[in-house]
Amino acid sequence: LAERERRIRLDLAYDGTDFAGWQEQPGRRTVQGVVAAAVTRLCGNRPTHVRGAGRTDAGVHASAQVADCLVASRMDDDDLAHALRAMLPPDLRPRAVRTVHDGFDARGAARSKSYRYVLDTTVAGDPFVGRYALHHPAPLDDEALRCALARLPGRRDWSGFTAADCAITNRVRDLHEARFERPSADRACLTFRASGFLRHMVRNLVGTLLEIGRGRRPVEDVAAILERRDRTLAGPTAPARGLCLVGVDYEGGSRYT
Amino acid sequence: LAERERRIRLDLAYDGTDFAGWQEQPGRRTVQGVVAAAVTRLCGNRPTHVRGAGRTDAGVHASAQVADCLVASRMDDDDLAHALRAMLPPDLRPRAVRTVHDGFDARGAARSKSYRYVLDTTVAGDPFVGRYALHHPAPLDDEALRCALARLPGRRDWSGFTAADCAITNRVRDLHEARFERPSADRACLTFRASGFLRHMVRNLVGTLLEIGRGRRPVEDVAAILERRDRTLAGPTAPARGLCLVGVDYEGGSRYT
Repeated sequence: LAERERRIRLDLAYDGTDFAGWQEQPGRRTVQGVVAAAVTRLCGNRPTHVRGAGRTDAGVHASAQVADCLVASRMDDDDLAHALRAMLPPDLRPRAVRTVHDGFDARGAARSKSYRYVLDTTVAGDPFVGRYALHHPAPLDDEALRCALARLPGRRDWSGFTAADCAITNRVRDLHEARFERPSADRACLTFRASGFLRHMVRNLVGTLLEIGRGRRPVEDVAAILERRDRTLAGPTAPARGLCLVGVDYEGGSRYT
Repeated sequence: LAERERRIRLDLAYDGTDFAGWQEQPGRRTVQGVVAAAVTRLCGNRPTHVRGAGRTDAGVHASAQVADCLVASRMDDDDLAHALRAMLPPDLRPRAVRTVHDGFDARGAARSKSYRYVLDTTVAGDPFVGRYALHHPAPLDDEALRCALARLPGRRDWSGFTAADCAITNRVRDLHEARFERPSADRACLTFRASGFLRHMVRNLVGTLLEIGRGRRPVEDVAAILERRDRTLAGPTAPARGLCLVGVDYEGGSRYT
């Protein structure tokens, strides 16, 4: 019986702290690299290319990353999931494995992606979320933050909030949603959903928005930075550890195609 | 102006992963040792003894530990709290500092303490709680667990669930409450409130209860182990990382005296 080569969708969750980001780099521990090595081992050492919906930076987490790759294996999806759970480390977990049609492209087919930035607003700092949140004990002006966020959605050129070394020249992306929430007395979250994100885009937005929330900048700065498309006008890049890829949406449902 | 020596109550939260437990030990990083060193530095290097309500084991966490010590300082409570926040590491946070009456004893005055054991019940394991929960994907019989837990409360000799090397001979403690909950689809918790706990008592209870929940032991074993007072009859000691000291109650309110 010949091994059937097929494409699988992998839903992944990872603690990004000890990864040098998603993208494979020689000699570094990356999410793409660790997943590819495991799949390759499962398929009799046949190399495979793993595509990810979001190329998370070093230190950025994911609760719902989506990836895809070709596998040559007689195992069904459940057995593959079982094998991957046994092979992948505790900080990189396969949530689901599902055979998809050959043309599925986790990155290309994504209709939108959602990122959440988490703030620990306790005075002393919560020792249990130090890896997953930015400690921000200073008071925030929720009204100013919400006003600034309300000006973001739309199809725009995000050059003003993109890393200076970003090689991509078309910086137009459609931001569907930008919201601020306080899920509890100890936390605040900034959530962004867009057709795509540019390098450091969320972290630069958050860095600027936190300056607005602390009254160090006027709400109007957001519009000015967008219009001038000048990264030097925006605030600092917020630390990676507060950021998490929390969802990827596809045509016909967010979880599977 | 002479420095006023006074007693303070310290409310602490810590991630126990990188501590060799509460109790000071030469050459080891312990919670008591790190707190005492900070307070000593604050008080012009005058040594101080820090008492803790619960002597948590290596790897056990606390979201609401209570401690007390004498301080010789002109700083008021707010300034002490501020100084301690700056001195203590990210995995050991002072939640509150409050001057208490001279006779306050965080350990002796505690009416009850509560410990919670957390299970990550997801199939793949949640990469964000690996330090704070035991991964337990196998199904649990909630009814059996609740039946077994219902037999525990009362004033009893806990020898059957106490570490073999425990030097304490009076092993009678009053267990006020023992409950099982599923706060979400992905978690299960076992919570215990008692006048006091013996070494490994909660972890031995949990180890035995999980065997009951998995159908490997009958519910009746709990009563038999208590009656026979024989540690060798009970299940294994559950790993430290799932356990957290979540509350200490005092006469007149849980937070302050």
